[in-house]
Amino acid sequence: MPETRLSSLPVLAIDVGGTKILAALISRRGEILAREHILTGAGDGPEMVVNRIFSAIDQVLKSSYATAGIHSISLAIAGAIDTANGIVTLSPNLPGWHDVSLRSLVEGKYRVRTFLVNDANAAALGEHYFGAGKGMKNLIYITVSTGIGGGIIIDGQLYSGASGGAGEVGHMTIDVDGPRCACGNTGCLEVLASGTAVARDAIRRLGQGDKSVLNEMVNGKVEDVTAEKVGLAAQNGDSLALAVISQAATYLGIGLANLVNLLNPEMIVIGGGLSKMGDLLLEPARQVVRERAFPLLSQAVRIVPAQLGDDAGVFGAAVFAWEQTAS
Amino acid sequence: MPETRLSSLPVLAIDVGGTKILAALISRRGEILAREHILTGAGDGPEMVVNRIFSAIDQVLKSSYATAGIHSISLAIAGAIDTANGIVTLSPNLPGWHDVSLRSLVEGKYRVRTFLVNDANAAALGEHYFGAGKGMKNLIYITVSTGIGGGIIIDGQLYSGASGGAGEVGHMTIDVDGPRCACGNTGCLEVLASGTAVARDAIRRLGQGDKSVLNEMVNGKVEDVTAEKVGLAAQNGDSLALAVISQAATYLGIGLANLVNLLNPEMIVIGGGLSKMGDLLLEPARQVVRERAFPLLSQAVRIVPAQLGDDAGVFGAAVFAWEQTAS
Repeated sequence: MPETRLSSLPVLAIDVGGTKILAALISRRGEILAREHILTGAGDGPEMVVNRIFSAIDQVLKSSYATAGIHSISLAIAGAIDTANGIVTLSPNLPGWHDVSLRSLVEGKYRVRTFLVNDANAAALGEHYFGAGKGMKNLIYITVSTGIGGGIIIDGQLYSGASGGAGEVGHMTIDVDGPRCACGNTGCLEVLASGTAVARDAIRRLGQGDKSVLNEMVNGKVEDVTAEKVGLAAQNGDSLALAVISQAATYLGIGLANLVNLLNPEMIVIGGGLSKMGDLLLEPARQVVRERAFPLLSQAVRIVPAQLGDDAGVFGAAVFAWEQTAS
Repeated sequence: MPETRLSSLPVLAIDVGGTKILAALISRRGEILAREHILTGAGDGPEMVVNRIFSAIDQVLKSSYATAGIHSISLAIAGAIDTANGIVTLSPNLPGWHDVSLRSLVEGKYRVRTFLVNDANAAALGEHYFGAGKGMKNLIYITVSTGIGGGIIIDGQLYSGASGGAGEVGHMTIDVDGPRCACGNTGCLEVLASGTAVARDAIRRLGQGDKSVLNEMVNGKVEDVTAEKVGLAAQNGDSLALAVISQAATYLGIGLANLVNLLNPEMIVIGGGLSKMGDLLLEPARQVVRERAFPLLSQAVRIVPAQLGDDAGVFGAAVFAWEQTAS
């Protein structure tokens, strides 16, 4: 039965981020059989980055687990992806990528069926199948990192919308008079609650002369403050850092309350760098949801941290490939 | 073949609003075979209103089209509806309605299978099957009236969420520092762009001494200003009224842009009293969507007025009944 054999083969999944390329061989049972990572060097432009993707693929293909064959190659990429045509339309984290036909480049070289999917959509699928959201019917995944992205699972399936772009939770306006976002709008969730927003707010408060251990952590170079450092300082009880995180968590909670009123999900899974702060970020956000969303709807939702960490993208890219080929 | 005969029977559909009860016999082909309406008299409390619902049902059952039998009775109700158990949990427009087991009351009296559905969800189904959204896969319906409600169609089906409450588009925060909403939050779409918001904003501006034909329209009694009158004044070029509508349309557009970025729908259908203003309201809202939503997503969506007017609820209640009994 060749069909059964085919579907049990592992997927060679790649997560192409602005910083690193992670490639892994993922079994149908959710094991990582082999993995490889390599720096993206995004500033070198599309051609060099594509070569590095090829290198990562080559390394994983050398694994003994790949010798029996692979189901497909599946790439998760940050940005606007035309999944139907296998094209990276635009990527904020990969300079110079406009309408890159990545699928045909990969298929041309490896003669293996290839898929492309947005990285946050992939992470939603990964958490749904192998992580925090196992068994959930309706789930929203949100990654809170440099930016804020997301993916929506409805009735157990990735919901991608009319043109494959659904799930842009970071670009929901929650404060119309708020600061300008990279997308051009004002007061998007991303500009108020992302890692970038946390660092910017901390730097602003330090510039006002507010005291904080952050000053020592960066040896007085305030421009070196990152969301990660603010999180560490907050965990150590630094009051400036705690105020910054509390502010971001409040905005995150307002965004979550909007999603709860709109989509009445069973679960919201929070991933991305900032989710590593755990309840320091999540508990105030949950409190805002209890205060702002309709009681019947807020009672129905669990807001939980992601479980797959940086591997959510590769797991999800593999799930995407299996789903695309399911009969 | 009794099954075929059963499914071709008309549904006795009722839309229970805060002002009137509309009952209609709807054929599978979308014809209204008989209709009846009666004032709700909501202030008289649940028992009296239930009796009026019975009267409306009795009237429609007298129609010659009902003599061959009906498929079911299906009620669309404003408020939080527990569709699975047939209970009106809470209704902002029907004072005193808390956990009313309306389905068992109706089934007890008529011995006919009965369904309950939220009115805006029903209207979404109605417009999807028989109105502006025919043939669309992913569609959002929004009613802009005294309040703002909605319904979401995904993959051709009503999406009702984990506990049946999805689609509360009116209670998406878009201006966190905005005015207090009836739901308890600040800056919800409803408090900024509903008919109530339009009337309130017009009254505020009149109170500042701004000139307007509205003063004559209400003989100086500014408290008599309604959204409908503001719409009429705007259609006649009144500058105060135009400014009020433009403001509401801008907020509506921000809410629509959020929905476009989040759900990437093919179509958004705008119904409710304010939609009767047509392009006076819709064109500035479309412009805001073009400015604020991601280009790939805003290009994919059509924003159109509803087609079924006040009948969307009864049409949709009928569709809901057929869908619940489809094998």
